[in-house]
Amino acid sequence: MKSFQSIGLAGALLVTAASAQTFRRLGACPTLGCVFPPDQADFLAGQYFDIRLEVHAPRNGSEAIGLPPDEKFTFTIAKGKGKPQDVTKFFGIEDPKLEKWDFSWYEDLFARDAKKKTVVDVTSKAYRRVALYEPGEYTATLSYNNGSTTKATWLVRDLKEVRKTKNIILFIGDGMTTNMISAARLIAHKSINGKYQSLMAMDKFPVLGHQMTHSIDTFITDSANSASALYTGHKSTVNCMGVYADSSKNPFDDPKVETIAEIFYRLTGGQVGIVSTAFIADATPGALTAHTRDRGQYGHVVDTFLNGVTNYTWTKWDGPAVLFGGGAEQFYSPKLGGKTYQDKDYYEEFAKKGYQVLWNKTALASAPNDKKTLGIFTVSNMAKWIDRNVYKTNLNQSLSPAGDKTPALDQPGLKEMTLKAIDILQARSSGKGFFLMSEAASIDKMMHALDYDRALGELLELDDTIKATIAKLKKMDALKDTLILVTADHGHGFDVMGSVDTHYLAAQNTDRKKRDAIGTYEQSGQSQYVVGNLTYTDSNFPSNWDPRYTLFQGLMADPDRREDWRIHKDGPRTPVVETEKGSKDYVVNPKDGQDGIVINGTLPVDNESGVHSLTDVPVFAMGPCQERFGGVYNSIDIFFGMAECLGLSRGKKEREDAHGHRGDHY
Amino acid sequence: MKSFQSIGLAGALLVTAASAQTFRRLGACPTLGCVFPPDQADFLAGQYFDIRLEVHAPRNGSEAIGLPPDEKFTFTIAKGKGKPQDVTKFFGIEDPKLEKWDFSWYEDLFARDAKKKTVVDVTSKAYRRVALYEPGEYTATLSYNNGSTTKATWLVRDLKEVRKTKNIILFIGDGMTTNMISAARLIAHKSINGKYQSLMAMDKFPVLGHQMTHSIDTFITDSANSASALYTGHKSTVNCMGVYADSSKNPFDDPKVETIAEIFYRLTGGQVGIVSTAFIADATPGALTAHTRDRGQYGHVVDTFLNGVTNYTWTKWDGPAVLFGGGAEQFYSPKLGGKTYQDKDYYEEFAKKGYQVLWNKTALASAPNDKKTLGIFTVSNMAKWIDRNVYKTNLNQSLSPAGDKTPALDQPGLKEMTLKAIDILQARSSGKGFFLMSEAASIDKMMHALDYDRALGELLELDDTIKATIAKLKKMDALKDTLILVTADHGHGFDVMGSVDTHYLAAQNTDRKKRDAIGTYEQSGQSQYVVGNLTYTDSNFPSNWDPRYTLFQGLMADPDRREDWRIHKDGPRTPVVETEKGSKDYVVNPKDGQDGIVINGTLPVDNESGVHSLTDVPVFAMGPCQERFGGVYNSIDIFFGMAECLGLSRGKKEREDAHGHRGDHY
Repeated sequence: MKSFQSIGLAGALLVTAASAQTFRRLGACPTLGCVFPPDQADFLAGQYFDIRLEVHAPRNGSEAIGLPPDEKFTFTIAKGKGKPQDVTKFFGIEDPKLEKWDFSWYEDLFARDAKKKTVVDVTSKAYRRVALYEPGEYTATLSYNNGSTTKATWLVRDLKEVRKTKNIILFIGDGMTTNMISAARLIAHKSINGKYQSLMAMDKFPVLGHQMTHSIDTFITDSANSASALYTGHKSTVNCMGVYADSSKNPFDDPKVETIAEIFYRLTGGQVGIVSTAFIADATPGALTAHTRDRGQYGHVVDTFLNGVTNYTWTKWDGPAVLFGGGAEQFYSPKLGGKTYQDKDYYEEFAKKGYQVLWNKTALASAPNDKKTLGIFTVSNMAKWIDRNVYKTNLNQSLSPAGDKTPALDQPGLKEMTLKAIDILQARSSGKGFFLMSEAASIDKMMHALDYDRALGELLELDDTIKATIAKLKKMDALKDTLILVTADHGHGFDVMGSVDTHYLAAQNTDRKKRDAIGTYEQSGQSQYVVGNLTYTDSNFPSNWDPRYTLFQGLMADPDRREDWRIHKDGPRTPVVETEKGSKDYVVNPKDGQDGIVINGTLPVDNESGVHSLTDVPVFAMGPCQERFGGVYNSIDIFFGMAECLGLSRGKKEREDAHGHRGDHY
Repeated sequence: MKSFQSIGLAGALLVTAASAQTFRRLGACPTLGCVFPPDQADFLAGQYFDIRLEVHAPRNGSEAIGLPPDEKFTFTIAKGKGKPQDVTKFFGIEDPKLEKWDFSWYEDLFARDAKKKTVVDVTSKAYRRVALYEPGEYTATLSYNNGSTTKATWLVRDLKEVRKTKNIILFIGDGMTTNMISAARLIAHKSINGKYQSLMAMDKFPVLGHQMTHSIDTFITDSANSASALYTGHKSTVNCMGVYADSSKNPFDDPKVETIAEIFYRLTGGQVGIVSTAFIADATPGALTAHTRDRGQYGHVVDTFLNGVTNYTWTKWDGPAVLFGGGAEQFYSPKLGGKTYQDKDYYEEFAKKGYQVLWNKTALASAPNDKKTLGIFTVSNMAKWIDRNVYKTNLNQSLSPAGDKTPALDQPGLKEMTLKAIDILQARSSGKGFFLMSEAASIDKMMHALDYDRALGELLELDDTIKATIAKLKKMDALKDTLILVTADHGHGFDVMGSVDTHYLAAQNTDRKKRDAIGTYEQSGQSQYVVGNLTYTDSNFPSNWDPRYTLFQGLMADPDRREDWRIHKDGPRTPVVETEKGSKDYVVNPKDGQDGIVINGTLPVDNESGVHSLTDVPVFAMGPCQERFGGVYNSIDIFFGMAECLGLSRGKKEREDAHGHRGDHY
């Protein structure tokens, strides 16, 4: 038997090959000793976080080294070049109980096909709610298996502690890329001889940046971990919200990191607003307060909106001043079919804590501004701009937020929700300022459905919201006190490559002949969406969503589908159907795009929709600290830019917070 | 018969429907009276340009109004609110001869299939080489058909005339998008837990912008008119270089606009350098001096490099100090098979005018810096970085620039050419500064070929060149005197959506099962291209171009092809073949991607490659005037930013140029 040291080295070499590809034993843990937060993590000084250590003992597979699970691992932390101290001494905390479990994984696709699992035994400890204060580098060292170490370099960023902005509004176009903005501009703004006669609100921002969206352990991200990176400054694994993923089954015990909403409220008492066109328990809004390995824990998400984290000592949280969106099914009583946390009626739970509860645009418009406000306007995701404004019969569904299966016809849009949110936040802020996140969620959702028109409609609604927000802040004399950021969480591989003569397409009999309807380069022509008098006077939207010549647009990574490149008038597109119900074997929906051409897909056939892409996404910044957001950087830099601008860095433990508490005691 | 006025109006309404789509009667001329430059054109004060007027009399078709071609049209120009003057009086020029011709076009695809042509008679006048000096708005009015008018608003931009930068280096990544930069970063730079350990040179630029690339008359552009927009501040039609497209057959009589190379040399005597990895007569380098409706006029392009425009009085041009690239077939004698302008030997023509002529990297390295230099290193496009550095046997072809059919094995890369160009320009500039355009042409060419790996290799070479250029300028103490811009001319609809397990892909028997090899989101994994020790110490390129897990990457707008997502080791990819030689009916090349999945295309089947896309492209700026290039703007704004930075605006005709001439006389 080789010595432990050389086994450790050989083990390390072996795991490099197997790890970090289609599947992995555990993200951000390439060796058998795992430290979370891992190597290369950056921290805001004073930000609460948990530590989780794991030692893995694979029973079989390519990384097995024949050692039993190590119960005697140790963990030290050193500041700079200082002497390492045991973690309990460093933070002045008790030694936690040793935890044990096991899990299994497939090492690659061949193993999955053969159902050949690798089983891993785990020993673990978790240290809850600590914080680092002094800026600089820390070295966290896990020693395990009698000679192996995992070293994690942690950096507490050295940020100024002076608050520069009173308010921050963070607009998130979910899935929105530069390519999509170019397309939205083309269909909603007139152009004469190459000169646009009007521009997107986003186009006029003074500062432009790009942020890199990748996950901690994979290069493509989802909306959960990408939102977490923007809100906490810590990247994590797909599906995670406000935690690093550990390997335990329990989705609530993963090591947490404090979000900007939590820190802002704890340190300043400022008001927080959360607005989204998604079901409100969805990842992008949810990641502001939820902490779970599994974004599908909708009940937990709604409960943390109201009550914060309750299963651990965590942070001070009394609920947001504003919470607007869809997803009524996580609120109304199970008696009506609601799927709620612990079967409670969450409209009642919010009301008990002093919230006014609103269900439609009319109520929204007339609601007083001085109360905490919950606005839930539909079951599931909110209706799309195109269906609220152009093809309105699509609203006749049984989606009332009351849960009584009547239609939800009077839904506000992102603009109404955002403007009202600002009114409430400003009225309630008592000079302490506010943080508002406003998400155009269905850019992404409609891109997933390959419904490009509806996605661009949602993007245009976001731009219209930004335009109205700037005007409103100007009128309130609050523009100079507000940092406005517009960005995305990640992209989709979408672009426009020309135009489609839809009449010609329909008139041809074969797919190969239909393809002649595609006009590229000089045959792309001009935008037919804004010909003639524009329908909207103050806003920029297409006058015609169904012209003869449409955009030749789309993505490469898709299921099978048939494209006719025309707007879907009956509601959001369903490009695929299952060959058999429940089979998850997707093929072209024979009712979709009947004049079009079939394009076979590239994605695994159990995918019914498009997927996310790698591309850096744009950042538009205006207001105090705007210069901080120019150039190219990582997604986590958005968090650190916002935190510094709000003066949230706490390089010294002794500074008091807004609730009269010091450091990590409350 | 209706009155002329109402016919004019009805005619205008009719043409709106027919024009500006798959085909058009003439770009930027929606009515029957055409003015070039057209409405919305911006000018640099003092910039030479031609005026072309056309009156169209369709004989048949949707726009026919039964009038004969108008020979008595008139044209006036008014400055601001001043009185309109006839154009000859305004510029103090002679009235030119009336020209007449006819042309035909198809009004849409149905007409094309039916071979139903619309024929148009034209009367026209051209006014050559005028200029506007005083900043402000001008109204140019064409009166025709006894009561119809076309009004064009021309804006001479009010720019400062103080020179801020000594030198400009304009790097063009042809076809390069933000999405591609994200992918290149992923395969060439190591990342630990989401934190890149090194970054692209482009990532480090202080200022980021986006520019809109669309044509004057269509929303997709090609490299010719997009280069022209960057070099002249005037958008134009696909295939045009340095001209607006008129409707005459002659490709050399179209109305010209002066380029930044021409203006810079004329006004300051500064040195111009042109470097490209394309055949040097290609559009992006060619558009700096050529003026033609047809980018395929390669002979004309090479002749204008050396002699400027010779068939008209135009501008002062004595040839660039540096001209480096491929395309030897436009240089060596027809005796050897060269296709040259007027059958001359252009190596001789350049030598006669004092150029040293270089044919390989060795000669490049040892050449003196004080002579004008022509460097032509291969027949056709230069070899790709991957074939020069990784799969070197692909260089064994008969492409020697001598025209003797030996291989061109000793080719420089973009880096060697650019660094040497700087040496020569600096040595020859005598304090007058230089303008250098350096193009990574084959990002685009390889994206067209769906050879994503080679395209990213060219992008990485561009980034390496930028890095080396900055270091060199620093060493020469010239960095602070040099504005460095990096941008693209247009995009392709490319992105990365995950990874491919190429072993699993090859092992499956059906396309539907092969698709399971695609890993998205958490299954995308990490970059396998930079695992282990990096091969290159000072540069960032993948260590392994052929790992098991490759990028799931591509574009939607393609011909039929089969993707295995692996590098093509035998040279640039040929994804399609003709069903019959000469048929231009393209199908999957059965030799390509044999383990992969067939994806049927979307483009017309006579397309053998991918196409350009709409997306705004990035701009990276560093140096004097860098702040001018942040935010979102139009492609023409790059020209105006560069011109202003070089102090090239001439608001008063009386200022003398570098050659002792005033205004438009030389």
